[in-house]
Parts: sequence; structure tokens; C-alpha cells
Amino acid sequence: MQEKKLHSQGKILFFNKEYIAEFVYGGIDGAITTFAVVAGAEGANLGISVVVILGLANLIADGFSMSVGNFFSTKAERDSFEKHRQVEYWEIENLRDKEIEEIREIYAAKGFKGELLEQVIEVIISDKDVWVDTMMKEELEMTKSDKAPYKTAAVTFFSFLAVGSVPLLSYFFAGADMSIEKPELFVYSCILTGVALAIVGSFKSIVAEKNIFIGIMETLLLGGLAALLAYFVGDVLEQLFR
Amino acid sequence: MQEKKLHSQGKILFFNKEYIAEFVYGGIDGAITTFAVVAGAEGANLGISVVVILGLANLIADGFSMSVGNFFSTKAERDSFEKHRQVEYWEIENLRDKEIEEIREIYAAKGFKGELLEQVIEVIISDKDVWVDTMMKEELEMTKSDKAPYKTAAVTFFSFLAVGSVPLLSYFFAGADMSIEKPELFVYSCILTGVALAIVGSFKSIVAEKNIFIGIMETLLLGGLAALLAYFVGDVLEQLFR
Repeated sequence: MQEKKLHSQGKILFFNKEYIAEFVYGGIDGAITTFAVVAGAEGANLGISVVVILGLANLIADGFSMSVGNFFSTKAERDSFEKHRQVEYWEIENLRDKEIEEIREIYAAKGFKGELLEQVIEVIISDKDVWVDTMMKEELEMTKSDKAPYKTAAVTFFSFLAVGSVPLLSYFFAGADMSIEKPELFVYSCILTGVALAIVGSFKSIVAEKNIFIGIMETLLLGGLAALLAYFVGDVLEQLFR
Repeated sequence: MQEKKLHSQGKILFFNKEYIAEFVYGGIDGAITTFAVVAGAEGANLGISVVVILGLANLIADGFSMSVGNFFSTKAERDSFEKHRQVEYWEIENLRDKEIEEIREIYAAKGFKGELLEQVIEVIISDKDVWVDTMMKEELEMTKSDKAPYKTAAVTFFSFLAVGSVPLLSYFFAGADMSIEKPELFVYSCILTGVALAIVGSFKSIVAEKNIFIGIMETLLLGGLAALLAYFVGDVLEQLFR
């Protein structure tokens, strides 16, 4: 009973997950993209103004393109399901014998035979919705997504901007207090970004149905390595240019 | 017959699509991210060296984080399917009556009743694989993904870097020939990025099963608007900073 309950919870998470997933992947992408700009600029010894200007420009442009891209791909998935479903309805009307044969093959593979198989086929094809539903699941292996494109896009946009602005926070405050040394700003940015990635990473463990510690470590490692790469590339190129 | 053939082709595309999809979304994301850096730097009148340094740093760091992120999310999807499948195997062993009842509900909903319903249940539960397969498709509405995580990650990485380097090409050549005026470089970058986005957009129409013209226009519009946003943000912030 314990296990059953656990599984039911898993299913509840599986449905809610649709929005958590967008929050998690939008947030991680936003933080890493902006942090890469900060780290690259830091590695190349570019000024605070460059970090703030390009960090913000990148944040807004990428947040926009990612959420609109998300809208289109979620919509395309739904459209594809609907299109295939319409084709199946067309086929059971116009290629009836062939589609009956496909139902026969599907249920024969499940172990049905003889008179029972014929009776099963009769029930399935007596209801067009059941017939098409069987073709979608068994022949095409497609299941309908409950995701609303505008909702996934909105969650992605919000999460990308909110989490993605974290690496820039310390630089914004530098405008108000120029007495803060620049290396300190980058250290603050690293700490704040690390905290943000850890929080989003803990939610990622829910989406990926993993241990919370693994979710956090994976996300921190990913962000850290990406920033290291950006810092290194910035550093090397700056030496080449000067 | 014509329509049936078309549908079969659709199915073939649906399977190949798994790799085309990574190519398309990796490529679009790479081009737009890098183009946003170029446009933002251009709007803020930053030098060629800043464009090349931060463009490359962002390209490599984002390409890395996006493909590794893709690896984890593809893997999480497969793991989730496998985990739920194992739970179903556990349940049919340990909560047999409850699971039989679920099969009864599933097939009653399809229109089966009386003696025939009992016979159908008997065949389904006589084979554990068929039983679990039915629970996965009908109860959880989960179908197995054929995607290999390391393959989708590799295609994403390659596509992100290849298409994502296009907006920077004209700036690389500026190093060799400094007689090219800087405004020209941005114009070349816009043209090259437009061509690259149009090509990837035409593939997107395959993934999204849409008209090729719509695929191209959607992609060009998305990239153009993102770049406009970045340019505008760069321009405004530069005026605030100076």
C-alpha cells in the first residue's frame, strides 16, 4: 500500500510537472546564459558597463526567443497529435478493411486469437473514438499532451528573466556604490548564482524524479563548468587581442 | 491509398524527427543567442573585440550547457518511464486484485461488458508484459522514447556551435582585413544569420509538420525580433551609462 501511494504521488507530480519543468529549464538556462556573459567579460577584463549592457541585452533577447520558441514547439507537438488523429479518422472511414486488419494485428500481438479476437475487434471498431484512440496509442505510440502553449511559454519567460537576472544583481548595485571593488562584484555574482542554481536544481530533482542532492549537484556543476569555459575563452581571447 | 502512403511517410519522419528536432532547436538557439550578443554590442557601440570575445565565450559556454542539459533531460525522461514501468510490475505482483480492477475499468470504458469483458481481462493478465504495457499506455499515458541521450546531446552541441558561429563570421574576417568598415560587418552578420535561420527554419517545418514557408518566416521573425530587442536594450543602456 505504501508503494502504491508513492506511485500515485508520482502521477500527481507527473501532471503538475508540466509547469515545474518549464520553470526549472527556463531558470537554469537563464542563469547559465547570463552567468556566461558575466564570466566571459570578467575573464577578458571588460568593464562593469559591458557586463551590465550585454548581460541585460542577452537576458531579454534570449528570454524572449526561448519562450516564443517554447510556445511554437509545444504548439507543434499538439498540432502533430491532432493531425495524426484526423488522419486516423479519415483512414477508418476510407480504408476500413486495412484498419480492421491493423486492429487484428495489435490484439493478436497481445495474445488474443480465434473467436475471442474477432469479438474484441467487433467491440473496438463499433466505436470510432475507441478505434482511433487504439490506433494512436498502439500503432503510433502517441499520447496527448495537456500542456497549454501560452502557459508553458509564460512560465519559461518569467523563470528565465527572474533566475537569469541573479548573476547581474551585484553589478546593478555597483552603480549605487562605486566603492565596491570590481573583483568583489564577480565573487558576489558567483555566490548568488550558485544559490539560485541550487534552489532551481532542487526543483529539478522533482521533475527528473531524482534524489534532491543529485539535482542540486548536477545543476551547480553544469553552471560552474559553463562559466569556467566562458571565463577561459574570454581570458585567452583577451590575450590574443591585446 | 495516396493518403495512407502520406501518413506512412509522416510516421517515418516522426521517427527520424528525433534527431532533426535537436538539430533544429539547437541551431536556432545557437544563432539567436550569438546574434543577440552581436546586436546588443552593436547597439551599445562596443568594439569588434568585445563582439568576438563575448560572442565566442557565450557560444561555447551555452553550447556546452545546452547539450549537457539536453542529455540530462532526455535521460530523465527515459528513467521516468523505466521507473514507472518497474512500479507497475511490482503492483501486478503485490496488488494483483487492484490492478485487475484497473484493467476492468480500462476495458469497460472501451465498451466491453459481461462475459466478453472477463475473457479480455483474462488474456491481458495472462501475460505480464502485455498487462504492464496496457497500464503504461492506458493508465499513465506514457510511451517510451527512442531517443539516446548521448546522441541528442551530440547533435544539439554540433548544431548549436555550427549555426551559432554564423553571426560571428564577418567579425572573424575583420581581423584579417581591417579596411572593412564596422557598420558593414554588422550588415554582413545580419544577412548571414538570416540565411542560416532560413535554412534551419525550413527543417523546422519538417519537425513541426508545417508548411515550409511558415517554418522559415517564423524562425526569421523570432531571430529578427530577438536581435532588435538586444540592439534596443544595448542602445538605451549605452546612453544611460555615458
